[in-house]
Amino acid sequence: MYIPTLDDMLAARTRIAPHVHVTPVLTSRFINELTGAELFFKCENLQKAGAFKARGASNAVFGLTDEQAARGVATHSSGNHGSCLAYAAGRRGIPCTVVMPRTAPQAKKDAVRGYGARVVECEPSTTSREAVFAEVVAETGAEFVHPYNDWRVIAGQATCSAELIEQVAGLDAVVAPIGGGGMVSGTCLTLSNLAPKTRVFAAEPLNADDAARSFRAGHIIADDAPETVADGLKVPLKELTWHFVQNHVADVLTATEDEIVEAMKLIWKRMKIVMEPSSAVPLATIIKNRDIFAGQRVGIIITGGNVDLDRLPWM
Amino acid sequence: MYIPTLDDMLAARTRIAPHVHVTPVLTSRFINELTGAELFFKCENLQKAGAFKARGASNAVFGLTDEQAARGVATHSSGNHGSCLAYAAGRRGIPCTVVMPRTAPQAKKDAVRGYGARVVECEPSTTSREAVFAEVVAETGAEFVHPYNDWRVIAGQATCSAELIEQVAGLDAVVAPIGGGGMVSGTCLTLSNLAPKTRVFAAEPLNADDAARSFRAGHIIADDAPETVADGLKVPLKELTWHFVQNHVADVLTATEDEIVEAMKLIWKRMKIVMEPSSAVPLATIIKNRDIFAGQRVGIIITGGNVDLDRLPWM
Repeated sequence: MYIPTLDDMLAARTRIAPHVHVTPVLTSRFINELTGAELFFKCENLQKAGAFKARGASNAVFGLTDEQAARGVATHSSGNHGSCLAYAAGRRGIPCTVVMPRTAPQAKKDAVRGYGARVVECEPSTTSREAVFAEVVAETGAEFVHPYNDWRVIAGQATCSAELIEQVAGLDAVVAPIGGGGMVSGTCLTLSNLAPKTRVFAAEPLNADDAARSFRAGHIIADDAPETVADGLKVPLKELTWHFVQNHVADVLTATEDEIVEAMKLIWKRMKIVMEPSSAVPLATIIKNRDIFAGQRVGIIITGGNVDLDRLPWM
Repeated sequence: MYIPTLDDMLAARTRIAPHVHVTPVLTSRFINELTGAELFFKCENLQKAGAFKARGASNAVFGLTDEQAARGVATHSSGNHGSCLAYAAGRRGIPCTVVMPRTAPQAKKDAVRGYGARVVECEPSTTSREAVFAEVVAETGAEFVHPYNDWRVIAGQATCSAELIEQVAGLDAVVAPIGGGGMVSGTCLTLSNLAPKTRVFAAEPLNADDAARSFRAGHIIADDAPETVADGLKVPLKELTWHFVQNHVADVLTATEDEIVEAMKLIWKRMKIVMEPSSAVPLATIIKNRDIFAGQRVGIIITGGNVDLDRLPWM
């Protein structure tokens, strides 16, 4: 297992610069007063393809040799990684196949196709997904880019907090949502090297708290199909992301479904940005853990903005 | 009638700089491809208090002598001007009274009070509003800051396009929503002086097209209580804003209710920002007037982001 290094992040930053935005950092006096902390929201919802995953996907795609690239890339994802890989492959002009459950929302399939990639449907089960995905790879020879358990992807996600610490000096902490742990791992990679005094917290829905339980148990615990409004955070840790969580995360904090939706609405209302329920989990945990964050300068990763406007959680 | 000048805008810019944001300009490749134009969205929804009106209100409030300021400011508004005047008065620490119909949404009243101002309710009629407002002024001696027919307010709004042309070079046109015409007047003031080749278009709901009809008729036409989803754009032109519209606007374009809501949803979905129906009118008119804007570099003023998340127009 190769653990990505600071040099990998620096190389990723140069490699992906033409293909991703340096996203803005927003603040809200109202939310600062509410939490007693000084919060800096790193807006990856304004990233290309609407999510931080454009970083890792671009790093993987543009790091391929021409020979590899000619065979294309493939992944399985019903979320942002699929559309972000499609985006990156489209930028390089190479084939991309995304295996998605046939039950995935039409909008998600349309997004992948909108970037010029191919959607191959599977049944909504791990067995079917793995079988269909194996067929795709056998048929195309495509390079598999895992949504998070991939050092190239983690090195790409790590560029986000490299920007953040240039945009905001003296952060005491950064809080990022955790699902599979790609963003948290990237954050750990960058901050442990470039800002070792800045603590990294992972924020997770209580309904899908496998990372919190893993963290306390000292080994990976994977849940089977947890249900949460923060649908980007259902997937379990894997070896590579567990390495970073285990070694560099200060704590994994959780929030209830109601707390997540309330924090989401607060951000929409006060900050005027469209973001996913997953992205609201950090603020939800900061609001309920005033003792940890009050008086501190805290970065929050707003991970993505791809939400179904016809099915908002408060509708 | 005093017509504000470029010097008034420049003085406003210095005066309000500590109290307002230099708002970001966002772009969307998808929307560019859809319209055939290169669009630059000036995000005043991310402005202090959630609307460009923080500029004009701050200019009026911070331009008062200490003696005037001690008596406070007052206005009548059920929209963004009320909360923005309350915001500016709060920054200066002076009294502010906003006369609002008792039927105005509770959230609007709460916003004004949230900034420390006083709400005085009137009946939802012009007669009642004028009577109650006269009482407030007689009682307090407060300085009246009109929502748009006020040279200090227009000079403040004019700072928005001064930023925009520094942020984006070579604009062929700027499109701004028009209600009373404060933003359009400020845009005309700045561009006619600093970028005379950049044409100014006003965008208006067809359901409240009094500015379009005024423009064609050559005199002010005021509608009585038009109904539109773009609730910030119901008010009529007044002498001062008519001066700018008549002399500097290239055209007033209109869009239907459906076109406005569709453009609004498109911006939310693609650009990940929360903005008001009023702010979607420019894009709606650009989509339907491809012949005017295709191939051009076009600035769009996203005027505000204060929308009731529980009553979105597509719910």
